[in-house]
Amino acid sequence: MKNKIHIVGIGPGREDLMTREALEVLEQSDVIVGYPLYLELLEKRFQKKELLSTQMRQEKERCLLCFQKAQKGKRVALICSGDAGIYGMASLMYEIGNDYPQTELVIIPGITAASSGAALLGAPINHDFCVISLSDLLTPWEKIEKRIKAAAEGDFVIVIYNPASHKRKDYLARVCDILLHTIAEERVCGYVENIGRNGTKTTICTLKELRDRNVNMFTTVFIGNSDTYVINGKLVTKRGYQLTMNGQTANGGKH
Amino acid sequence: MKNKIHIVGIGPGREDLMTREALEVLEQSDVIVGYPLYLELLEKRFQKKELLSTQMRQEKERCLLCFQKAQKGKRVALICSGDAGIYGMASLMYEIGNDYPQTELVIIPGITAASSGAALLGAPINHDFCVISLSDLLTPWEKIEKRIKAAAEGDFVIVIYNPASHKRKDYLARVCDILLHTIAEERVCGYVENIGRNGTKTTICTLKELRDRNVNMFTTVFIGNSDTYVINGKLVTKRGYQLTMNGQTANGGKH
Repeated sequence: MKNKIHIVGIGPGREDLMTREALEVLEQSDVIVGYPLYLELLEKRFQKKELLSTQMRQEKERCLLCFQKAQKGKRVALICSGDAGIYGMASLMYEIGNDYPQTELVIIPGITAASSGAALLGAPINHDFCVISLSDLLTPWEKIEKRIKAAAEGDFVIVIYNPASHKRKDYLARVCDILLHTIAEERVCGYVENIGRNGTKTTICTLKELRDRNVNMFTTVFIGNSDTYVINGKLVTKRGYQLTMNGQTANGGKH
Repeated sequence: MKNKIHIVGIGPGREDLMTREALEVLEQSDVIVGYPLYLELLEKRFQKKELLSTQMRQEKERCLLCFQKAQKGKRVALICSGDAGIYGMASLMYEIGNDYPQTELVIIPGITAASSGAALLGAPINHDFCVISLSDLLTPWEKIEKRIKAAAEGDFVIVIYNPASHKRKDYLARVCDILLHTIAEERVCGYVENIGRNGTKTTICTLKELRDRNVNMFTTVFIGNSDTYVINGKLVTKRGYQLTMNGQTANGGKH
């Protein structure tokens, strides 16, 4: 018989930023698997469940744990912060799932940091944007650099995940230096620390200022495009609404 | 005294894909404003509220309605499909809000189609990606074309919103033609119709096949990058996990 594993995006951390679907899936699970930090966010509510974790860089083991529990007939949920399908565990689960044809994988989407961070800053990604991770553990730096250049070339708003870590303290400065070749130093940017957790803090600054800011792995960075402005302390990328002759507005597609 | 308007992303349409925060804000509102189609999704649950709408292309009027109601002391929520800050009404509200300094705007994030569509297809945006709208009502086609080229140059996964409308039937074909200059015709792609609504349907195909598919404004399109594969019928972009010497995995930054 087919068994099923749910891979659940829990959003930035606050329970009220989870979808009802995500909460229901977790409530109906026997086993919840995740990185320790994220299990902690949930353990009060789900203390009667079997909660299992593996350490950082033990992602494959964490996935295998899920398949082993599912094979024993347990209802398993694997949690990821943000959206499970955006820098989350979904793709690794599909790869490993190749060896477990009797297990079906179901992805439950969550609020990713691009959405939750943008909401706190204003409306910086209200038009076309790119999401780029600066983690070069498995992506060569040259590829990250190429993407940063392409994003600037396309005048995208750029959302940066994992802008720094202990070993990568200067990566955001490096990215800003690349961008400053083609983008004016006054370009407006913003960043959010600890989205959905204690110590949430938003900052708006210029690209030049951003270069020298200290950020960490719990920071999400937004680099404006040529249509991004600061309006009353909020970072806003215009979507291009314009008044037409009769006072109606033309809309870029969504309502 | 300051009054407040909440701008609420309701996700793809199904109530269980809304966050609890979004549901609570709507429950505490006196007036819910939105495009008629999205109000319909909510009207059963919120039939005792004052529900107000304006037609398509009457976005500015819809915003003004919110500020007018808020000035009268009403608790107002403006709803948008998906995420209110991704091709939603958030930025227009900030612009118009310049004339209403006594009104504070609060953005409530929601699940955007990139997340919900990806979850149905597999894990296509598990690494760096771009989101591009093909609506050229207010973005010149040349700019859209430039972004498509830049996205291909950067080897991004590309998520396309608004791939077509009555007046823009051939836009997706035009985009594919641009991409086919630099990307092999076998590149794997996918699209999802009617996410979170009746008639949800996922399709996986090649870039060459995508060129001739009929899509509409309720379709979200995913164009894979050089690391995207089809695994057991799912569209998966590898995040670059690799086994290290001792069997541990290295991780691209999130857990």
